Amino acid sequence: MNTPEPASPRLTQILDFLLFCDRFKQVQRRNLLADASRRETDAEHAWHLSLYALLLHDELGFEADLGHTLALLAVHDLVEILAGDTFAYDTAGVAGQAEREEAAAADLFGRLPDDLRDRVDGWWREFEAGKTPEARFARALDRLQPFALNVASGGVAWRQHKVSRAQTERRLAETRAADPALAALVDHLYARADAAGLLPD
Amino acid sequence: MNTPEPASPRLTQILDFLLFCDRFKQVQRRNLLADASRRETDAEHAWHLSLYALLLHDELGFEADLGHTLALLAVHDLVEILAGDTFAYDTAGVAGQAEREEAAAADLFGRLPDDLRDRVDGWWREFEAGKTPEARFARALDRLQPFALNVASGGVAWRQHKVSRAQTERRLAETRAADPALAALVDHLYARADAAGLLPD
Repeated sequence: MNTPEPASPRLTQILDFLLFCDRFKQVQRRNLLADASRRETDAEHAWHLSLYALLLHDELGFEADLGHTLALLAVHDLVEILAGDTFAYDTAGVAGQAEREEAAAADLFGRLPDDLRDRVDGWWREFEAGKTPEARFARALDRLQPFALNVASGGVAWRQHKVSRAQTERRLAETRAADPALAALVDHLYARADAAGLLPD
Repeated sequence: MNTPEPASPRLTQILDFLLFCDRFKQVQRRNLLADASRRETDAEHAWHLSLYALLLHDELGFEADLGHTLALLAVHDLVEILAGDTFAYDTAGVAGQAEREEAAAADLFGRLPDDLRDRVDGWWREFEAGKTPEARFARALDRLQPFALNVASGGVAWRQHKVSRAQTERRLAETRAADPALAALVDHLYARADAAGLLPD
């Protein structure tokens, strides 16, 4: 048996952050799973987005580094552990969202060693700003994936929350504009929604 | 409004695969969440591993490409959608696991266009073989993360399934051997387990 050095305070600080982030698995989103059995959690959403990125990366025109995109996707909603999920179609909730999430980021990311705090905080801000190819790719997927789940699950969450077709169209404009193949996928999903009688005008 | 081309059969095939993989969120693992409130799902486990990889990558001595590691982690358990989760300490279950997972891989990955089928299948096999630096890094984390959760949750799943300290030691040997800092983290977690009176000899 080799006897390793004791874990450094830095390593145990990272471990404690990783364990604290277990709460991400208990942040519930508004949309349901594809079979409509229950709401999706933030952690499941983040994993699913990574699979979307891996399988759609080469189909699209983004000059985006895949590893960097996956990093953005893994942390993009992490502040919701402390700030809660804000429903995209809740105007009042969206109004205070930025302040809540800034405070949450300072608290949450501040639990990491400074250099890692800055890195994760930077990924989160990069995603929010949506300027880099990786952030535009990640944001486009972040809107496509719940739309696909809402279509697959029969629009239950849309009816529950009285979401109109026009609201979904506005939300998906960023995904459509990001890439022609994504625009085609959005149209395809609307055609499926129409065939199922979801989202009437 | 621009009118995009219709989505290609290839794109809709990828979309259908992504929607089929929603079932990954309903594969339950044996270990519990950190607060012991319920079992963890495969999708949550996969997301958590990506966060482990992002935050531990620079602390360890692996010459592993981070993006590649994240790809392996996103798909490493995907066959469990069809093959089910095999409990690491279930000797009988482990015996038939390879055959079940081979059949599941052929079915599941065969739903993708051939080139993507080969890519995802290759990632899965690379993880299983554990030969590349990325696979060794991913496998080490795959054993560390549930161990950390079992310690954090008070060892409930260990007691439920009558797991002995020796069994955990054997399972974590690969993580210990992979990197000195990981070995230190494993020791640290055993010290926490001992302080809480978990895992007596």
